[in-house]
Amino acid sequence: MNGSILDIMRETSSDWQKTTIDSAQAAAHPETAQAVARIKALRQTIDNIDSAAIALLAERFKATSQVGVLKANAGFAPEDTKREDYQIERLHRIAIDAGLDPEIAEMYREFVVTEAKKRHKRIADAGGDPGVLDVFA
Amino acid sequence: MNGSILDIMRETSSDWQKTTIDSAQAAAHPETAQAVARIKALRQTIDNIDSAAIALLAERFKATSQVGVLKANAGFAPEDTKREDYQIERLHRIAIDAGLDPEIAEMYREFVVTEAKKRHKRIADAGGDPGVLDVFA
Repeated sequence: MNGSILDIMRETSSDWQKTTIDSAQAAAHPETAQAVARIKALRQTIDNIDSAAIALLAERFKATSQVGVLKANAGFAPEDTKREDYQIERLHRIAIDAGLDPEIAEMYREFVVTEAKKRHKRIADAGGDPGVLDVFA
Repeated sequence: MNGSILDIMRETSSDWQKTTIDSAQAAAHPETAQAVARIKALRQTIDNIDSAAIALLAERFKATSQVGVLKANAGFAPEDTKREDYQIERLHRIAIDAGLDPEIAEMYREFVVTEAKKRHKRIADAGGDPGVLDVFA
């Protein structure tokens, strides 16, 4: 680790993320100023990605909620292992193509499928009435 | 539950999802044929949403990996509670606007932040060398 960078970190305390490094500091420690600026830019990208991801999750749960109503009305079980096997294989493949660790894709799948199934079961227990779900489901 | 639908389900076994209901069956049980067709269409939408979500996650982990390298090189800790508080509040708000249960948004945040921090720590432990991560990180 570079001593001068650590000195700056101590000077600016744990608030560095919110601290605007002034021009004198930036001139004295350009590498820290540059790192802070790059982290800030990357965080805006991350926030934009999260906005898009939340919009997709909203649409995904709307779609799975409709599947839950159709399944409950038709008497189909919430569980569907063939569908899950298909999704596991498909997401693994897509993750590798996208340059994402397939382990992350599988964690994503487990998360959304588990939550969708919980909601399907609630709909089925209420005899196909999606009204048992809160306004967001 | 409708008895005739349950009968159809027994006849077509647990393979109903992969079974193409023939025209005679569809004519005899139009409500089941319609439910199967609608579930199939919704599943294609869900798969498309997942493709987009995996692409976003791939870009998100590329961005957080860069943040990890910058933090490690500058000696910044992987943890950043102020940033997390900001994200919690922001994603809660975005989820409500999008019609998503904020609990789901918080689960998404915990998942991606936990995984990103694990990877930041691996980078920091290797002295800022992103090569410690596998090819996907």
